[in-house]
Amino acid sequence: MTNDPRLTPLAASLPATVPFVGPETQERATGTPFTARLGANENGFGPSPKVFDAIAAAANDAWKYPDPENHDLCTALAAHLDITPDNVMIDAGIDTLLGVLTRLLIGPGDHVVTSAGAYPTFNYHVAGFGGTLHAVPYRDDREDPAALIAMANEVSAKLIYFANPDNPMGTHHDAATVTGMITSVPDGCLLILDEAYLETAPKGTAPPIDVTDSRVIRMRTFSKAYGLAGARIGYAIGHADVTQAFNKVRNHFGMSRLSQAAGRAALADQTYLHDVTEKIAQSRDRISQIAKDHGLLPLPSATNFVTIDCRQDGVFAKAVLDGLIARGIFVRMPGVAPLNRCIRISCGPDPQIDAFAAALPGALADAQETHRR
Amino acid sequence: MTNDPRLTPLAASLPATVPFVGPETQERATGTPFTARLGANENGFGPSPKVFDAIAAAANDAWKYPDPENHDLCTALAAHLDITPDNVMIDAGIDTLLGVLTRLLIGPGDHVVTSAGAYPTFNYHVAGFGGTLHAVPYRDDREDPAALIAMANEVSAKLIYFANPDNPMGTHHDAATVTGMITSVPDGCLLILDEAYLETAPKGTAPPIDVTDSRVIRMRTFSKAYGLAGARIGYAIGHADVTQAFNKVRNHFGMSRLSQAAGRAALADQTYLHDVTEKIAQSRDRISQIAKDHGLLPLPSATNFVTIDCRQDGVFAKAVLDGLIARGIFVRMPGVAPLNRCIRISCGPDPQIDAFAAALPGALADAQETHRR
Repeated sequence: MTNDPRLTPLAASLPATVPFVGPETQERATGTPFTARLGANENGFGPSPKVFDAIAAAANDAWKYPDPENHDLCTALAAHLDITPDNVMIDAGIDTLLGVLTRLLIGPGDHVVTSAGAYPTFNYHVAGFGGTLHAVPYRDDREDPAALIAMANEVSAKLIYFANPDNPMGTHHDAATVTGMITSVPDGCLLILDEAYLETAPKGTAPPIDVTDSRVIRMRTFSKAYGLAGARIGYAIGHADVTQAFNKVRNHFGMSRLSQAAGRAALADQTYLHDVTEKIAQSRDRISQIAKDHGLLPLPSATNFVTIDCRQDGVFAKAVLDGLIARGIFVRMPGVAPLNRCIRISCGPDPQIDAFAAALPGALADAQETHRR
Repeated sequence: MTNDPRLTPLAASLPATVPFVGPETQERATGTPFTARLGANENGFGPSPKVFDAIAAAANDAWKYPDPENHDLCTALAAHLDITPDNVMIDAGIDTLLGVLTRLLIGPGDHVVTSAGAYPTFNYHVAGFGGTLHAVPYRDDREDPAALIAMANEVSAKLIYFANPDNPMGTHHDAATVTGMITSVPDGCLLILDEAYLETAPKGTAPPIDVTDSRVIRMRTFSKAYGLAGARIGYAIGHADVTQAFNKVRNHFGMSRLSQAAGRAALADQTYLHDVTEKIAQSRDRISQIAKDHGLLPLPSATNFVTIDCRQDGVFAKAVLDGLIARGIFVRMPGVAPLNRCIRISCGPDPQIDAFAAALPGALADAQETHRR
């Protein structure tokens, strides 16, 4: 349909792509399931056991359309965050929220700032609405707040994307730095503060929530620490003028009723969340030690993954990645230099990490062999 | 944010609306749950019991992102329909599919044709992408294929929306009429054939699927006969050039993993589907008889609801509707004259229909009283 005259000029110009190829696609291609699934920063420890009861109960009501206001989950999140429900907007994952927000603000001729190597799905949405993307480099393997703000000023950007903690490097800035960034957002610009990994970050990573400040919209998810990537639940936090603008164009019945219930149950079990973040921290330490044992350099991580500097170039890291995948370990790596000297390993239960540890020496040996040629 | 200078001009012009107010919103406002839920054409008989097992099994994998290709459900649908997976595009309900399709084809200056009183969410998407909507009247309480085609020619439309069977009237055209309509679609135009209610329609309602014809895209759902409105599962059927164009802009991880599994289980149990459509037919007859018993005129229905002509004007029908709602019966009605002389009652289990039957005399008496004043 690329050449179909019925498409809008913008749609005709876009490729039909998948921002991320799923592990299932790779499994279908090889005919072999992965033995470890450590590539998408999922939480292999899973959600609170109470989520399963909530899903089973909600299944009995699966014949009913979901509440388009997501009222119960929205109210629970607002209470948890000590804000009002108007300051919360829920949709099917941060991906969906990023798409709606981009649609609200960005059209052809509008400028957007992100970091080179940051979240590809955001870039996909910007391209999908005709925006012009400007990427600034990471500095010392962290996103560079000053450079992002400077670029936003330079190009009169309407949106800045900034993740804290960051993916794919796992690094973070402290709350004071983020607050300074928010206060520097240029007039006419909105800062997207993606906090998908906040629950696994050190205390002091997130600035206090201030819903009177319309310069920033924060995005969080049940896909990471809460262990519910498959249920697609994300939420935005911000000034009500910003969050409620989503009602202009969002798909009001886009959230599954089962996911609404799963999110409520997961949020209610903060004890489990605390326990699972402890497990993630232990897994992070273990992955780091495995990397060190093989002469690699694990980056300090504030997330549920460890990014490992393979201490050579992107070709070498890709060879290591390929060696792991060939050995049944699903992992991913950053796509842009110089970040692509690294591979990225998600935390998970010990058997999954055991499988990674067992596969790494062979993958490294293969990569070194290839590299010498 | 309506006056926020950061919004695109189009977004700034749009109201922050909900196309349909959910029954939960009404329940929260009154503080009283509805005793019968017959307003959204949900299937109160529920999905196949096998769906519950499938959901429970999928819940164990809820920590994993869903397959962005929806491969297993897509393949199952393709096999069921005797087409290839490339001819199927799955997303979170027909609402989502309509939004993506509108985005692909429609921008400011583009023209779209529908029927006056047809699906409001489609109109919402057209407005949301800046299209100009042209509505032709129903003829004898059915959508008017010839008038839709004539209008499409007149305004050089890029999209026509046509539902068969139709909502909100429940009427239908036969396959030959639909085929004639497809062959009359003007160059440069695409016909959306919404078949959400097909499973409850008489044999001979749907023309054969011809995926070589890029003039039509058909949309179907698990929300109606399959009893899974809460899981948000819709699919489009068409020429691969059309269905695969969705990959340009769709939210690839928009489908919940639980919903993917629920859809597969529902599709696999065609015996249950057959049985439930029998129950729906019986419920349809019962609702029609109740209407006749009170001097009202039920329209012939090919859907899982019965539209009842209250034999007076829209003010009177609205009074009947209000009387039913005040008595705890959630129902809806068409929004545009002359269709709005009717109320619309979804099929459901006997206790729900009993509650409707018990409430109707009082609602009618109140409406007649109000009308006399």
